[in-house]
Amino acid sequence: MAGKAAAAVVKVNGSVAEIRGATNPMVTALLTDLYQFTMAYAYWKAGKHQDRAVFDVYFRKNPFGGEYTVFAGLEECIRFVANFKLEEGEISFLRSVMPTCEDGFFDYLREVDCSNVEVFAIPEGSVVFPKVPLMRVEGPVAIVQLLETPFINLVNYASLVTTNAARHRLVAGKSKTLLEFGLRRAQGPDGGMSASKYSYIGGFDATSNVAAGKLFGIPLRGTHSHAFVSSFMSPDEILDRALPSHDGSSTCKDFVSLVQSWLSKLQVMKSGIPNFCAVALALNDLGYKACGIRLDSGDLAYLSFEARNFFHAIEKEFNVADFGKMTVTASNDLNEETLDALNKQGHEIDAFGIGTNLVTCYAQPALGCVFKLVEINNQPRIKLSEDVTKVSIPCKKRIFRLNGREGYALVDIMTGENEPPPMVGERILCRHPFNESKRAYVVPQHVEELLKCYWLGNSKNGSVIVDKPREELPSLKKIRARCMQQLEQMRPDHMRRLNPTPYKVSVSGKLYDFIHFLWLNEAPVGELQ
Amino acid sequence: MAGKAAAAVVKVNGSVAEIRGATNPMVTALLTDLYQFTMAYAYWKAGKHQDRAVFDVYFRKNPFGGEYTVFAGLEECIRFVANFKLEEGEISFLRSVMPTCEDGFFDYLREVDCSNVEVFAIPEGSVVFPKVPLMRVEGPVAIVQLLETPFINLVNYASLVTTNAARHRLVAGKSKTLLEFGLRRAQGPDGGMSASKYSYIGGFDATSNVAAGKLFGIPLRGTHSHAFVSSFMSPDEILDRALPSHDGSSTCKDFVSLVQSWLSKLQVMKSGIPNFCAVALALNDLGYKACGIRLDSGDLAYLSFEARNFFHAIEKEFNVADFGKMTVTASNDLNEETLDALNKQGHEIDAFGIGTNLVTCYAQPALGCVFKLVEINNQPRIKLSEDVTKVSIPCKKRIFRLNGREGYALVDIMTGENEPPPMVGERILCRHPFNESKRAYVVPQHVEELLKCYWLGNSKNGSVIVDKPREELPSLKKIRARCMQQLEQMRPDHMRRLNPTPYKVSVSGKLYDFIHFLWLNEAPVGELQ
Repeated sequence: MAGKAAAAVVKVNGSVAEIRGATNPMVTALLTDLYQFTMAYAYWKAGKHQDRAVFDVYFRKNPFGGEYTVFAGLEECIRFVANFKLEEGEISFLRSVMPTCEDGFFDYLREVDCSNVEVFAIPEGSVVFPKVPLMRVEGPVAIVQLLETPFINLVNYASLVTTNAARHRLVAGKSKTLLEFGLRRAQGPDGGMSASKYSYIGGFDATSNVAAGKLFGIPLRGTHSHAFVSSFMSPDEILDRALPSHDGSSTCKDFVSLVQSWLSKLQVMKSGIPNFCAVALALNDLGYKACGIRLDSGDLAYLSFEARNFFHAIEKEFNVADFGKMTVTASNDLNEETLDALNKQGHEIDAFGIGTNLVTCYAQPALGCVFKLVEINNQPRIKLSEDVTKVSIPCKKRIFRLNGREGYALVDIMTGENEPPPMVGERILCRHPFNESKRAYVVPQHVEELLKCYWLGNSKNGSVIVDKPREELPSLKKIRARCMQQLEQMRPDHMRRLNPTPYKVSVSGKLYDFIHFLWLNEAPVGELQ
Repeated sequence: MAGKAAAAVVKVNGSVAEIRGATNPMVTALLTDLYQFTMAYAYWKAGKHQDRAVFDVYFRKNPFGGEYTVFAGLEECIRFVANFKLEEGEISFLRSVMPTCEDGFFDYLREVDCSNVEVFAIPEGSVVFPKVPLMRVEGPVAIVQLLETPFINLVNYASLVTTNAARHRLVAGKSKTLLEFGLRRAQGPDGGMSASKYSYIGGFDATSNVAAGKLFGIPLRGTHSHAFVSSFMSPDEILDRALPSHDGSSTCKDFVSLVQSWLSKLQVMKSGIPNFCAVALALNDLGYKACGIRLDSGDLAYLSFEARNFFHAIEKEFNVADFGKMTVTASNDLNEETLDALNKQGHEIDAFGIGTNLVTCYAQPALGCVFKLVEINNQPRIKLSEDVTKVSIPCKKRIFRLNGREGYALVDIMTGENEPPPMVGERILCRHPFNESKRAYVVPQHVEELLKCYWLGNSKNGSVIVDKPREELPSLKKIRARCMQQLEQMRPDHMRRLNPTPYKVSVSGKLYDFIHFLWLNEAPVGELQ
């Protein structure tokens, strides 16, 4: 499917996203579960494959014991839809896998694309909540089913790691620098690339991953490894000892000796810090400014104070301006808990390098997004379950976020497609979708419709006509800015680490009544204790 | 780096691996941490970049609370080495990131490849243990450092998920079918592809991931989703009701009615099972054989017995041969623990579909492989730490697995490169690398040298001469077979889930003495309590 895109072309800001769209050959129309193709065959055999179906993508529970999630992965889904096409070699492979299927089915598959599919979604980088559709995908049932697996694959990890990054940002505070150092522990090469991209969206400042820096334009940062230090047997190995001054006006003939002379003045602390300071002071003599140190083991809080005191003492003793402000970076299996513990102890760390726990989402390595049929041929569908959290919310819906007087988000409300939308200053009843007693009137000061149109393939007479405005796909920086701004708009008690308050997700009175009408009519008596 | 490979060409069995090598553009020479390039510059400035360095890849602790790990990811590392080359666009990007570096450094980077690098490794699919080098990488220090991040990235997740799959296989038993259903929960598209590949190596039988079926030749399996069932409002929607018999000799004009007539005879059980059986019996009438059912919720053990009893009753009542042997597949958040619990309860399940817990390695989502300098310019290097598990084992080493009379592996032993190797029937002293009191004499009945040469770029006069035999990269099926055979060669008490016995990893007496000589000479007094 590389190369040939569907007739409707996606407009994208910036070239970065285009490179990505064009070059990840893993993301093909075959990147789906076999059963999507066997079901497509069954739909086709039953003459149902063109039935108009609406599916919602949503999750049931926020990750990491929190009460919020950040939605990400949308751009990659839209690219997938734009490029969705089965190539001849893929058709041949499917034929070999499904040898009893009729030829006509493969002729049908040869022609499928997403020119009859609509994708509505909440903007990427938004704060989102359980049960609320992140995306609403409408189109011929057989085609939309083929999108299920890749859509969930592209959204699950993206949203999970973005949320994880956002949680680290919230606990670290705005003033700290957060560095993603996870490439070596990520789940494969593409896992590493995704981790870098989505950590940045979630609020990290930079990555160590050079390929991600090139592809996505994310700032790059790094330190050095233990092997670098131990590869030198002695300073004698440094053959070229000359270093010109920063302004080029003179050259120090033996920089190593300059460092050693500084070191002799600093031999008071049993650690690498005097070594660093001797180099930094020698550099300072020549007009250069050292960046700082990384602490990678031991008691990070204690060592950061020791280092800071040493830097301050040097600033004072040798009158070197700002030496006390030297950057102290810490790493070594950091996670949300250790950042929180460091904050409680107090520390002098300016930047944190976080790897394994961030990129593998060690605290909870999966987000359970699902893709559920909510309507087919204008008939609502509901999935019932003895477990009420697994009951789906039927119908093609609209979603609104209602904000209160202080600017904070109050509640999300889902309504039927044709209901009048909530209005600023007007009282509206918000009901819990399943619990009769939970209901509240809300007077919103601001109303945002959350689902926006990102893909509208509207085929007429063989050519594609886009007859409604469609949202552009924003740049990575804009998605990151939206995420930061959305996190600020949430009431702090929803965001805190300990016992956060659940954010309210509701349905309109009309939708509530309709859900319960369907429920009573569809559930076999006695099945739902 | 696509297209142009290093001068030495990798021979690979089968085309599958070649496709993969050629098409994953994520795996470039920039897929590394920034600090590898800044260190490379520092080596180059010090004139040390050509220093001959030996690094070991190893891990410190087996995952999942077990006492073994399966090594995987080797083929991808060798492909990386074979294709290692910086393209002009990558050099330009690095120049923009490292603006203070001299031009000569980028001229040097333009010429780097792995023609002077040697990679020795344990064969992929082998059972391996902590502290033992999985790979030994030797070459110019600046180049080998650039390999650190991609090598660990390619080995960590591959080995982790292969081990996870092997653990599921061991608890499920040989007779059960294991299906990998994890694509939608995997950490991105490439994560899904890797999960399918390495689950297969670890002992799974098939995957639902169609793209992995095509790329790697893994068998494909699938069922159908809830949405498929609920997309039908009634049987009236099925327009074409005719079904020819399997042998084509006749046609049933109304297959739906045939199913319904069977259903009326089976309405005894409140579940989907009679529906399935009615279809299976109607198919049987026309000479077809139904495959089986999937249980995706509820009490799987209980429901499997109910289903099995129902199938047996039908076999007896309607005299349909083998109806009782219908395949029962179970899914729904299964993991090692639930498989074990099902075994203890007893069940009638033939096949398990496993997703989230397998592919995300939920029980432990990271393996901590490290890449440590053990020798430079023939000088041994040791990394000391107050934590003895973090002390590295110095020197370029050989590794042998010693097997006992019953065929089981007894111990792995590391020796210096030039020591005489252990001999069958000859007593050899095996010492714990760090604990003086742990030592044992072993008389091996079989000795296997574990590290084999997989890459030997030996550049002479500008052309590459491979002057030693090099291991071929085996096919996926062969790697899987090695894994299965290796797991059988282990003593069962090392492999059990509860309180497994640690497998012994040792060093020769000579290497032990050398480690402790270095330790005493390098460690500052008082640092190692």
